Amino acid sequence: MQNFHPTGNCPVRNVLCRLGDKWSMLVLITLNANGTMRFNDIHKTIADVSQRMLTVTLRTLEADGLVNRKVYAEVPPRVEYELTERGKSLIPHIEGLVVWALEQMPGIIENRKKMIQTL
Amino acid sequence: MQNFHPTGNCPVRNVLCRLGDKWSMLVLITLNANGTMRFNDIHKTIADVSQRMLTVTLRTLEADGLVNRKVYAEVPPRVEYELTERGKSLIPHIEGLVVWALEQMPGIIENRKKMIQTL
Repeated sequence: MQNFHPTGNCPVRNVLCRLGDKWSMLVLITLNANGTMRFNDIHKTIADVSQRMLTVTLRTLEADGLVNRKVYAEVPPRVEYELTERGKSLIPHIEGLVVWALEQMPGIIENRKKMIQTL
Repeated sequence: MQNFHPTGNCPVRNVLCRLGDKWSMLVLITLNANGTMRFNDIHKTIADVSQRMLTVTLRTLEADGLVNRKVYAEVPPRVEYELTERGKSLIPHIEGLVVWALEQMPGIIENRKKMIQTL
């Protein structure tokens, strides 16, 4: 990680920026916890994401091969989403972040309060 | 991670959303790679972040106790940023994501191309 220069063309940056779009990680851990889900189930679970943002997020995750979209020829058509193998391989890293967040949360909240007091 | 329900009040979600704002991770790994940096050095290294977005990102990271801001009483005042211990404790998890991204990048690029072809 020495002399790290995140230029616009950096492939790692390209991947991390797509993960860091606020909803991607939440969709991935929601699918990991609940298995195969329909659009509306994901929408209900992540309550405050808009329908449009969830659609965009799922399309992006599908384009990156992290989420698989299956359409069943029913009336009305049933569409289900699940993690791909690549998507599953990302979960341990996200879980590492979640464990870190759980550990650090009390200190972070404390810090934010101090910051507000000094404003 | 079973039955994960990311409600709006979830502390983990609260922390992850702030990391997932596109620039936070890049600022953290830039500071980790280069040590103490002045604002303009960070700005030059992460070339395409706007001055305003970088200011907001650094303030948020400071509020969360991930980045330390030191002001030296000089004319003009010198302001330096560095990772705190909490910020350093996050680096291994981000590096895990970076290693994953490097490994998966060729497959992800391939997948995106296929996706474009089917549009």
